[in-house]
Amino acid sequence: MRRLEFWYDFASTYSYLAATRIEALAAAGSVEVIWRPFLLGPIFRAQGWETSPFKLYPAKGRYMIRDVTRRAAARGKDFHMPLHWPASSVKAARMALVGANEGWIAAFTREVFEAEFEAGRDIADDAALGDVCGRLGLDFARLSSLVAGGDIKSALKAQTGRAQSLGIFGAPSFVAEDGEVFWGDDRLEQALAWPRAL
Amino acid sequence: MRRLEFWYDFASTYSYLAATRIEALAAAGSVEVIWRPFLLGPIFRAQGWETSPFKLYPAKGRYMIRDVTRRAAARGKDFHMPLHWPASSVKAARMALVGANEGWIAAFTREVFEAEFEAGRDIADDAALGDVCGRLGLDFARLSSLVAGGDIKSALKAQTGRAQSLGIFGAPSFVAEDGEVFWGDDRLEQALAWPRAL
Repeated sequence: MRRLEFWYDFASTYSYLAATRIEALAAAGSVEVIWRPFLLGPIFRAQGWETSPFKLYPAKGRYMIRDVTRRAAARGKDFHMPLHWPASSVKAARMALVGANEGWIAAFTREVFEAEFEAGRDIADDAALGDVCGRLGLDFARLSSLVAGGDIKSALKAQTGRAQSLGIFGAPSFVAEDGEVFWGDDRLEQALAWPRAL
Repeated sequence: MRRLEFWYDFASTYSYLAATRIEALAAAGSVEVIWRPFLLGPIFRAQGWETSPFKLYPAKGRYMIRDVTRRAAARGKDFHMPLHWPASSVKAARMALVGANEGWIAAFTREVFEAEFEAGRDIADDAALGDVCGRLGLDFARLSSLVAGGDIKSALKAQTGRAQSLGIFGAPSFVAEDGEVFWGDDRLEQALAWPRAL
């Protein structure tokens, strides 16, 4: 079975779009998804951006909201920007890394994105992450204490460094087994087919 | 017949991709294409960029070349970056505006993009534009003198200003009759179908 890495930041609207559909598409193509949460912040800062380019360039930001809304609607999804955006995605990403070890990362990722971009919750807020954990039967207190530890912090830093070394500069990105990188929800089909077809 | 505006800059690689296929797709969808050459330079400068973001952000630039090459290949096209890029697209854009008045803008646009991104010619060079005119049976000397005049210069400035007021921040962009904006070659199908389907 081929494998495809799905690199995402929980504050990324286009990562939300990809997260809502990657599992069904990958299953149909017999591709295994490797979930790779990382932080865009350090990568943006290395390019001189202190926040999302959608904040820095308002015309682009307005268009992004319209574009994501249209594409979500076409897939039957009701997209809303949360009040506070971009939210800090650090705690959610650290928890997702625990989920990668414990086998619940896919469901957790989907729930966090839906809470953020459908229910409009602030994912930097423990209340939102606590509710996600509750829905998945996960112990929020245990996870909060786990992600406050140095191991998970280092793991997320290392994962973000690996993203950068792969040439990733935005999210979502998809990386095939041969290292081929695809950027954007709209490249998901192409990434899943690679290298069999273009 | 519905109409769709195709906004492009001759230095834009993704505009090249759109130019190679918009006529066939539009004809199949019974949509009339309105060709709108403009200049990205002033729009980029208004955002604080002195050159293409693909030059300013090298990881993004390397990815763009790979992405455009893959997508061109999937459509049977042999894409090459010209040696000098981004080329000044001012003279080509001004000539295209003459072509909009005289009825040859579609063929001219396609030929310029192919000279630039398939044959690797420098479109800021009169030799390249002269060859394009020759292939189309156009009088290069007459056009050169026309585009040196104030009318065409003002027309291109006005067109670029209109792009900005429509919310355009990149190329290609497609604008539907109701003002809906779509950005990127990968949104062409969606723009052609608008508002009938998402």
